[in-house]
Amino acid sequence: MIDLRSDTLTAPTTRMREAMAGAEVGDDVFGEDPTVRELEEEVAGLLGTEAAVYVPTGHMANQLGLFVASRSGEEVWAHENHHLIGDEQGAAAVLSRVLPRLYSGDPWPSDALLGSWIAGAREGNVHRAEPALLWLENTFSGQVVPLAEQDRATAFAHSHGMRTHLDGARLWNAATALGVGPARVAQGFDSVSVCFSKGLGAPVGSALAGDAETVLRARRGRKLLGGGMRQAGIVAAGALHALRHHRERLAEDHAHAEALAARIDGLPGIRASARTNMVLVSTPEGLGAAYAEAFARHGVRALGGGDRVRMVLRQEIGAEDVDAAARAIEKASADL
Amino acid sequence: MIDLRSDTLTAPTTRMREAMAGAEVGDDVFGEDPTVRELEEEVAGLLGTEAAVYVPTGHMANQLGLFVASRSGEEVWAHENHHLIGDEQGAAAVLSRVLPRLYSGDPWPSDALLGSWIAGAREGNVHRAEPALLWLENTFSGQVVPLAEQDRATAFAHSHGMRTHLDGARLWNAATALGVGPARVAQGFDSVSVCFSKGLGAPVGSALAGDAETVLRARRGRKLLGGGMRQAGIVAAGALHALRHHRERLAEDHAHAEALAARIDGLPGIRASARTNMVLVSTPEGLGAAYAEAFARHGVRALGGGDRVRMVLRQEIGAEDVDAAARAIEKASADL
Amino acid sequence: MIDLRSDTLTAPTTRMREAMAGAEVGDDVFGEDPTVRELEEEVAGLLGTEAAVYVPTGHMANQLGLFVASRSGEEVWAHENHHLIGDEQGAAAVLSRVLPRLYSGDPWPSDALLGSWIAGAREGNVHRAEPALLWLENTFSGQVVPLAEQDRATAFAHSHGMRTHLDGARLWNAATALGVGPARVAQGFDSVSVCFSKGLGAPVGSALAGDAETVLRARRGRKLLGGGMRQAGIVAAGALHALRHHRERLAEDHAHAEALAARIDGLPGIRASARTNMVLVSTPEGLGAAYAEAFARHGVRALGGGDRVRMVLRQEIGAEDVDAAARAIEKASADL
Amino acid sequence: MIDLRSDTLTAPTTRMREAMAGAEVGDDVFGEDPTVRELEEEVAGLLGTEAAVYVPTGHMANQLGLFVASRSGEEVWAHENHHLIGDEQGAAAVLSRVLPRLYSGDPWPSDALLGSWIAGAREGNVHRAEPALLWLENTFSGQVVPLAEQDRATAFAHSHGMRTHLDGARLWNAATALGVGPARVAQGFDSVSVCFSKGLGAPVGSALAGDAETVLRARRGRKLLGGGMRQAGIVAAGALHALRHHRERLAEDHAHAEALAARIDGLPGIRASARTNMVLVSTPEGLGAAYAEAFARHGVRALGGGDRVRMVLRQEIGAEDVDAAARAIEKASADL
Repeated sequence: MIDLRSDTLTAPTTRMREAMAGAEVGDDVFGEDPTVRELEEEVAGLLGTEAAVYVPTGHMANQLGLFVASRSGEEVWAHENHHLIGDEQGAAAVLSRVLPRLYSGDPWPSDALLGSWIAGAREGNVHRAEPALLWLENTFSGQVVPLAEQDRATAFAHSHGMRTHLDGARLWNAATALGVGPARVAQGFDSVSVCFSKGLGAPVGSALAGDAETVLRARRGRKLLGGGMRQAGIVAAGALHALRHHRERLAEDHAHAEALAARIDGLPGIRASARTNMVLVSTPEGLGAAYAEAFARHGVRALGGGDRVRMVLRQEIGAEDVDAAARAIEKASADL
Repeated sequence: MIDLRSDTLTAPTTRMREAMAGAEVGDDVFGEDPTVRELEEEVAGLLGTEAAVYVPTGHMANQLGLFVASRSGEEVWAHENHHLIGDEQGAAAVLSRVLPRLYSGDPWPSDALLGSWIAGAREGNVHRAEPALLWLENTFSGQVVPLAEQDRATAFAHSHGMRTHLDGARLWNAATALGVGPARVAQGFDSVSVCFSKGLGAPVGSALAGDAETVLRARRGRKLLGGGMRQAGIVAAGALHALRHHRERLAEDHAHAEALAARIDGLPGIRASARTNMVLVSTPEGLGAAYAEAFARHGVRALGGGDRVRMVLRQEIGAEDVDAAARAIEKASADL
Repeated sequence: MIDLRSDTLTAPTTRMREAMAGAEVGDDVFGEDPTVRELEEEVAGLLGTEAAVYVPTGHMANQLGLFVASRSGEEVWAHENHHLIGDEQGAAAVLSRVLPRLYSGDPWPSDALLGSWIAGAREGNVHRAEPALLWLENTFSGQVVPLAEQDRATAFAHSHGMRTHLDGARLWNAATALGVGPARVAQGFDSVSVCFSKGLGAPVGSALAGDAETVLRARRGRKLLGGGMRQAGIVAAGALHALRHHRERLAEDHAHAEALAARIDGLPGIRASARTNMVLVSTPEGLGAAYAEAFARHGVRALGGGDRVRMVLRQEIGAEDVDAAARAIEKASADL
Repeated sequence: MIDLRSDTLTAPTTRMREAMAGAEVGDDVFGEDPTVRELEEEVAGLLGTEAAVYVPTGHMANQLGLFVASRSGEEVWAHENHHLIGDEQGAAAVLSRVLPRLYSGDPWPSDALLGSWIAGAREGNVHRAEPALLWLENTFSGQVVPLAEQDRATAFAHSHGMRTHLDGARLWNAATALGVGPARVAQGFDSVSVCFSKGLGAPVGSALAGDAETVLRARRGRKLLGGGMRQAGIVAAGALHALRHHRERLAEDHAHAEALAARIDGLPGIRASARTNMVLVSTPEGLGAAYAEAFARHGVRALGGGDRVRMVLRQEIGAEDVDAAARAIEKASADL
C-alpha cells in the first residue's frame, strides 16, 4: 500500500533519530534548553524575523499568531478553506474569541473585497466588530499564493491598522516552488507559522516567528495553552536536522507530484494537476470519496471528499513508488 | 424631515406612557415584579411556548438564545447577513465562543447546503467544530421567510441533533404578512427572540421564549450578562401595552410601504419594492449612500449603503407622510 | 409586614413616575436620546469624570469596568466578599476571562498584601497571570471604606501600572456618611460604577463613569453585552429624578438605621450595629437564617444567613415603621 | 554547582535516549502511533482508569481536566497554592472561563468548608456561580495528602453533583511515600493528570486519565489547544521507559531528601524538613530569597522566596551530591 494521504505521515530518518538521541537539553521553561534556542535562532534567521518560538504543533503556532494579534470581539479576515477556519475546531472562537470574516474562491482577497470590508468598520460603528488581523496561507492546499498578491494584501492591511499573519505550514514548499528564500515568502507579515513535520519530516514541532515583542507575547501564550515543554531539545534536534538537511529535497516531492499528475491526467474519468507536493484529482460531482476507495483497492491510499481526491508526496515516496502509484491508478480508472 | 431610517425610532404613545406610569412593580431579580411576569406569560401564550423571559434588548435575547444552545467551540449555522453575524459586534465569539458557518443568497439554507455541512461533522472528526445550532431570522431585512422553508430547515437540524433559534425581532411583521398567528411562525424553534420596540413601539425590551428549561437557563444567563433589572415593570408595562394594542396596526405600515414603493418605483434611476414594513431601493453600483443623501436634501432620512437604500415605515408615519415622502423622492430623483 | 430585605425593593414615587411618563426620548443606540445624554452628563459632573454611560444594571456597570480594564488572562485584585466575586455568577471569568486574586478581612488591602502580590508578577514570570486591575467597593455591605485607605491603595495600583475600579453601587451612601461630595469618593479610580435604584429608588439603571476613552470603550462593550437600549430616556428620566431629589434623603435612612440598631442592640440574643443604611445583627453561630425566620413571624422580613441578619432601610420605611420593626424584633427576641 | 531548583531539571538517561531513537511511530492525530497508544494503555492500567490521553505538558493535562469537567461560568474549588491557580497564568479563566473558589491552610478542604460553600449554590441562586469541580493535588509541594482526606472530599463532591480532578504531577511520589499503587491514589477522581518528566525524567509529556468519555472529550480538547502532535511516539517512548524503569527509584530521592533535611535542620538559622522528594527550609520572615542566594554562593542552587527555600532531589543527585550539598549549606549558614 502506497500511503499518499498526507505529508504528515513523513517519519523521522535514521540520521534524524541519531540527532535527537544525542541532543543537548535543558529546561526550556527556564529558557535553558540550548537546542531549542539554536532552533529558534535558526528559524528567525531563515525567515528574516527578530525572533521565533518553538511550539509542539502547527495548530498552536497558528492559534498563537491569532491570540497575540487580536483582542476579544475583533475580526480575523480569512479564506473559508484556510486551515484556521476549517481544521482547527472552534479554536479561534474559544482561545481568541474573534469572529471570522470569510471570502471564497482564490486564496487571497481582492482589493475590492478588502475595501468593502473596511468600509463601515473603524468608524466607531457600534454594531460591527473591529478588524484586527488579515490571515493568509502559503501554500494553500498545495497552491502557491503569488508574492504580488501577498504584498498587495498585507500592504492594504497595514495601511488600515490591521496586523497580518501567514500560515506557513508549507512555506518551505512555497519558497522552493517560487525559487526564493523563505524570508521573501515571510515578508509583509507580523507573524509567520512554520512547520517542521509534514514535508520536512521531523516528528514534532512548529514555530511562530515575528518581531521580538510578538514572540515574547507568544511565549507567554504558549505556556498558557500548555505548550511549554521541558527538555524539548530532544524533538527540537529533529526539527533542526530537518531544516538543515530536508529543505532542499522538497524539490523532489514537487517533481514527483508533476510526474504522477502527468501520468494519470487524462486517464478515463481523471483530471489531475500538480500543486507543489500535491496532486489534486477532480472527480465528477460528489465522487471524491468513491474515487479514493477505488484507488485504495488498487494499493494507493488518498484522501477523497466532495469532488476531489488529494495525494501528497513526501520523502518516503520515491520514483519507483510514483511509478507504482500511477500504475495502480491506471487500473483503478478502469473501475470508475 | 420625515425620518425613515428605522422602526427603532418609534416613540411611546401617550397611552403607552400612561400605562408605564401606572405600572405595578416589584423586584424582578427576586421574581416579584407582577407586570414583568404578566408580560412573560403573555409572550409565551402568543408564541405557543412554555415560558419566556424579559430582557432589555433584542441583542441580548439573541445572544442568550445562542448562549443556552451551545458550548464553547461549537458551530452556529447562519446567513452572512443575519443580525447575529453583522450587527452584534463579535458577541457570538465573545459570549458564547462559537464559530459561525455562513451561507449567502436566500435567507434560508437549502437541503444540499445543510447536507454538505453535516457531512464530516458529528463523526468524531477531531479537526472540525461540532454543529450546535441552526439560526433563522424572520422577517429578514423585511423579507418574509416562507414557513415551508423554516419547517424544512428546522426539521433537518433536529434530525441531526442540532437546536434551532429564530431571530424574531420582526416576527410580528412576518405573522401579519403571512396572515397566521405568531405561534405558527415560532413553530419548529427551540428558542425565539421577539422585540417590543421597533414596529410595536415600546421604548425598551425584548423577550426570549422557549421551553421551561431553556428559559430557566436564559434567566441565569440574563443575570450573567447584566440584564437582570429590578423594577422592570415600568418598561414591561409599555411592552405589554404594545403587544395588546399595536400588533394589529402593523398592517398599516405594510400598506404604507406598498404605497410608497408603488409611488417611487420607476422614477428615473429608482427601482423600489416593498417588503413588509420596509421599502428597499436598488441603486446603481455603490450609490446607496449618495441616494440617501439626495433623499435627505429633499426631506427624507433613510439608510443608504452599498447598492441600496432602506426606508422603514412605523406608526408615526401616516398616509400624509407617505405622500410627502413620495413627493420628496420624486424631486430627489431629478438630482440623481 | 415590614420588608427590610434590601434597598433594591425601593419603588418609584409618584413624582418619579410622572417624570418618566413625560420624558423626551430618542434612539439611544444612535446617540439621540436627550434624556439619557442629560443623565450621563449629570453623572459625570457629580463624579468629576470626563464622561459616563448609562446601562441597565449595576452588574453590567461593574462587568464593563472589568472588561475595559483588562485583557484575557490577567488578574483582578478584590475582596472575597465583593459583589463582583460572590454575586455576579461567574461573569468575571465568562465575560472578561480574568482570574481573581482575593483577600479577606477588612474591605481594603494592606500595603503588605499589595506588596507581596506585586512581587513575582510584572517580571516576565511565565507562570503568573499579570495584574491588571485593583477593585474596591464603597460602601461595602454598608461599611464605609475610609478615603485614606482608598487613596493609599489606588496610588499603589497606579504606581505599578494597574488600573483601579470602584464599585459604587452605594457610593451615594458613602458620600453622605463621610460628608463629602460624590466626586471625592470617586477620586483615584479609572472607572466608577454607580446605581440609580437601591436607595435612590429609580426602577432601572446604573452608570459607568471614567475618562472619555474608558467610557467610549464601555459604550461599545455595552452593545456587545446587550445593554444598548433604544428609547431609554423613559427610565433615564427616573434616574435623573432620583439623582436630583433622592440623594439628600439618604441621610434619613442612615438615621433610621442608627435608631433601629440602638433600639434592638442588647435585646436577649441580639447584637446589632448600624452601617450607613443597614443594620447588621450578629447571631450565634449558624443562626442567621433562624433569626430571620423569627423576625418574619413577627412581621419583619430580613435576609439571614451564616451568623448574621441584614436589614436595609429605604425611603418607604419611615420613623413609624422603624418603631414597629423594633417592637416586632423585641417580641421575636423572646422566641430566640 | 549542585542544582536543586526543581525535578523538572531531570535529563533523559542514555537508555531512555536509545528507547526514543528506536521508537516505532505513526501519525497520532490519525490515532496511528503505536508507541503513544501503548503508553496511553499503560497509564490507564497503572491508574485503574478506562483510558488515558498523552499530552505535551502537565499544564495541558490539568487544563484539559478542567475544560472537560466544567461549563463557562461555573466554579472550580481549589487551594490557593494549587498549581492550577498560581502557576498556570490565567489559563483557568481563559480556556475554561471558570471562577475559582479558594481555601488556604491544609491542602484539602474540611467538611465544614465544603458544607458552607455548597449552601446557597445549587438552589437556583441567580447570583452565584454553580460549583462544577473539586480539585486536589497530591503530592502538594512535596506534601502527601492523606488518602482518607481525599476519599472524604471526593465523596462529598460526588454527593453534590460535582466532579473531581487530581493534579497528580507527582502522584508517583505520593504512591511511593504511601506504599500503595498509583491506582489507589487516583481513586475517587473523575480525571487525573500525571507527569512523565519531573522525577521520572522523561523529556516531554504528561497524560490525562479517566473514563472513556472523559478521555474522548479531552482528546478533542487536546487538538483544540494545539496539543495534537504527529509522530509523538519518539517522546512517548521516553515516557514509557520512565514509567517502566524510573518509578521505583523515586524512593531514593525521598531517602536523599530525608538525609539532606536531617543534615541541615538545626544549623544556625535553619529549620528544614523533608517532604517526599523535597526539602523545605523555613527562614525568618521574608528571607527566603536571601537564603537561596547564600546557598548559591556556596554551590547549591535552590528556589527561595517569601519565608522559605525549596530544594528538590532527582535522579542526577546521588548520595555524594547530598553530602556535598549539606556541607555547602553548613558553610552558607555561617553567612546568614
